[in-house]
Amino acid sequence: MSKPKTTEARRPRGLEDRGPAAIEATRQMLETIRQVYERYGFEPVETPLIEYTDALGKFLPDQDRPNAGVFSFQDDDEQWLSLRYDLTAPLARYVAENFDRLPKPYRSYRVGPVFRNEKPGPGRFRQFMQFDADTVGASGVAADAENCMMFADAMEALGLGGNYVVKVNNRKVLDGILEYAKVEDHQKLAVLRAIDKSDKFPPSEIMLLLTTGRKDESGDFTKGAGLTEQSADLLIRNVCMGPMLDVVDGVAMPTSRRTLEYMQANLNTSNVFDEGFNELSQLSKIVEAAGYGSDRIRIDQTVVRGLEYYTGPVYEVELTFEVEDEGGQKVRFGSVGGGGRYDGLIGRFRAEDVPATGISIGVSRLQAALTHLGKLTSAAPRGPVVVTVMDKARIADYQVMVSELRNAGIRAELYLGDSGFKAQMKYCDRRNSPLAIIQGSDEAERGEVQIKDLVKGADLAARAKSITDREEYQRLSAEAQYAVKREELVAKVRAALG
Amino acid sequence: MSKPKTTEARRPRGLEDRGPAAIEATRQMLETIRQVYERYGFEPVETPLIEYTDALGKFLPDQDRPNAGVFSFQDDDEQWLSLRYDLTAPLARYVAENFDRLPKPYRSYRVGPVFRNEKPGPGRFRQFMQFDADTVGASGVAADAENCMMFADAMEALGLGGNYVVKVNNRKVLDGILEYAKVEDHQKLAVLRAIDKSDKFPPSEIMLLLTTGRKDESGDFTKGAGLTEQSADLLIRNVCMGPMLDVVDGVAMPTSRRTLEYMQANLNTSNVFDEGFNELSQLSKIVEAAGYGSDRIRIDQTVVRGLEYYTGPVYEVELTFEVEDEGGQKVRFGSVGGGGRYDGLIGRFRAEDVPATGISIGVSRLQAALTHLGKLTSAAPRGPVVVTVMDKARIADYQVMVSELRNAGIRAELYLGDSGFKAQMKYCDRRNSPLAIIQGSDEAERGEVQIKDLVKGADLAARAKSITDREEYQRLSAEAQYAVKREELVAKVRAALG
Repeated sequence: MSKPKTTEARRPRGLEDRGPAAIEATRQMLETIRQVYERYGFEPVETPLIEYTDALGKFLPDQDRPNAGVFSFQDDDEQWLSLRYDLTAPLARYVAENFDRLPKPYRSYRVGPVFRNEKPGPGRFRQFMQFDADTVGASGVAADAENCMMFADAMEALGLGGNYVVKVNNRKVLDGILEYAKVEDHQKLAVLRAIDKSDKFPPSEIMLLLTTGRKDESGDFTKGAGLTEQSADLLIRNVCMGPMLDVVDGVAMPTSRRTLEYMQANLNTSNVFDEGFNELSQLSKIVEAAGYGSDRIRIDQTVVRGLEYYTGPVYEVELTFEVEDEGGQKVRFGSVGGGGRYDGLIGRFRAEDVPATGISIGVSRLQAALTHLGKLTSAAPRGPVVVTVMDKARIADYQVMVSELRNAGIRAELYLGDSGFKAQMKYCDRRNSPLAIIQGSDEAERGEVQIKDLVKGADLAARAKSITDREEYQRLSAEAQYAVKREELVAKVRAALG
Repeated sequence: MSKPKTTEARRPRGLEDRGPAAIEATRQMLETIRQVYERYGFEPVETPLIEYTDALGKFLPDQDRPNAGVFSFQDDDEQWLSLRYDLTAPLARYVAENFDRLPKPYRSYRVGPVFRNEKPGPGRFRQFMQFDADTVGASGVAADAENCMMFADAMEALGLGGNYVVKVNNRKVLDGILEYAKVEDHQKLAVLRAIDKSDKFPPSEIMLLLTTGRKDESGDFTKGAGLTEQSADLLIRNVCMGPMLDVVDGVAMPTSRRTLEYMQANLNTSNVFDEGFNELSQLSKIVEAAGYGSDRIRIDQTVVRGLEYYTGPVYEVELTFEVEDEGGQKVRFGSVGGGGRYDGLIGRFRAEDVPATGISIGVSRLQAALTHLGKLTSAAPRGPVVVTVMDKARIADYQVMVSELRNAGIRAELYLGDSGFKAQMKYCDRRNSPLAIIQGSDEAERGEVQIKDLVKGADLAARAKSITDREEYQRLSAEAQYAVKREELVAKVRAALG
């Protein structure tokens, strides 16, 4: 039977296989989020995983290597195709292509895999799942307020109440202050990225990122944005450090009101700032009136979001509980999703811009958080009842037992391997099986089957040494394995499963 | 505001967008199948959409163009990657890579998109969904019998009872007769494909496919298998035409028993036939004992299945109701899935072969059938309650109403567009909204809101001309729109939704 094997069984880097516990946890989580989005009036839509490369555009966070970030290949008519790298660019294509027949505003949600052709790392995959919701055709800030409330409601529904905050900023506010700080266009992206790190690094490190560059512990060098120290200082003091903290319910935090006052006092520098500031004020008023306090949705002038296409409000949902990082330091779990307004993205396909705003949840990261907090059932589900095979010639009889159990709605299977009784018991164990059904020739003659209760059996085995009373032991043994009439199989199995 | 549009919004050929009704129908259908597979003791597993090209192997039905059939691209280390073209090849890789830690037999199911880089056509997509279940490590025919019964149970659960049959054959039986008919190895695939068409074409056309080739109405030429007329005749008489029909419950059909008798009388030509025939007999015995008659699972010597990797039993689930084809001819709906034993596929990665057998459902095709038979709710679901905007300055107040409704579990949304009242009513209509909530300044002063029942309103509008009694009309109008106290909003909306 021996033969040469020809191919190595291996998975490409940065791609993962997933087993039953993870799949079931994802299913529950997505269903919970879906119900929240449905309650907000959003409806599902699905687009293919492959799009024309030019339809996707180049809006990856990693703007330095726009082509390296996507998986691309040529169609047989030589046009370039790509695997989608997010769910927003395909939605823009879909809306533009179906513009006239869609209701406007158009609220939709979608969930599915996206792909990044990037260097994988721990927790950083080349295929991962996103769950997005977008509103197209609503120019007012009320749509952004809804996005933030929907984020908050999704977190509450997942059991994360008290462990999250939705942080809100506005690109126009940032643009105003960048203008004031004399940041040039080519410096902007590097500056935004440096500001984005202000929850991770102290001001001295942000200063390096904004000016001459920073070398990390591993020796990797990040190029600086090239600002003067004066400009950098202005940004650090006013954007990265922000307002004083208020104490709300015994917890120190900057309330939205305090942050807005602070912004007006310190960042009020231009017309574009004014526009953004007014939008933030309105958004704050709407969510507060709807009962979302600063502990749940909060204005925060440090929020940036990496994507270049945002044009107005931007938001981020941050999980606030602490975990240990690789170095053993306690750090906040951090962002599990974000979003914002992208009024220009659909306009790429049309003669006029179309207002649009949306949110995106990183499914794996959120699932990791929920698992960490014990909010998902991560235990393997109960396995099937296994009908064992004592006599291969009587497979058809055993199969009838299995069919009877299944027809009664009981999860059941026939042992399909070639091994003997001991290996079959081991198999039941690996399958997390609650009961094994056994019928040898003696039982068959008597018209009986044995039910072996594997949970009680394991319990008895664990306690065997401590049971000294012979009758007690016999009683427990009789509960762990007993004969029943063949015609009572289904009823007795159902009773044993409880 | 006018600007040049830069990109055309278009979708690559053979890829589809899907809306709410189709997505909901798929969700229900997959959930039903999933429950059946779970009851059979199968557990879910997911693999990535991208695999190493060599790990997938070249097992496409279209063996003539093995590379053209898959979407492939090079990784940055120059290794070739491909999008998976089915769910079996990735499972083989997964099992081989995790062989020692998996229980054996290992029963698993998976659902997801697969990709074919082929010429798309009507109902033929380059991305489509499959739902597979496989048992690895079970060499006996009992595992194949289970596959057939699980197929049948899934069809029953979907409401297709009486409209399907699972047809079963064995590759070894076919191999026996091909050997007897002196078919050479290089002719085998073309011969199998010709036989596979025997439910579509009359014997005269099959004769052409088996010998010199066949030109279809459009002028396309299919190369013949190159058999002599004598060999071809032998195959057509004994394989394509098959046994006499029995009458079962008033329906004429070849029962499994009759087909088995026929096979033994007419095809019994070699040892390899014998082996296959015994497997078929055993399988037939098991499914009959479990209560699956020939109307549900039936031995059929014409079943071939296109994939080259099958090594034993092969099966196909055929829907038997009739639909009209493009030419207006009544034809059976046909196959929605198939499967079989592939004992060599995992062995590609290992020093020894590993027995394996599985089934695959074509999700879109099955969904098309269920939709055709009205077995899926294809109607758009009820839309949200829409809170209209009468005064933009009071958005926050309207949002509070929406939040109250949502917190009570009622699907609701704020109108987020910029249009006036009439357009808002039109929007409600397009959204299939049951109720609109209206609060102008008068109502606000009185502490009231108007509830507009859009279903009753539409009903009244349709009947308006036939209602001559003024009081009757006023009574109906009052039911279609009425004022309620602001604080009673949730209770009254709930009552109106019933």
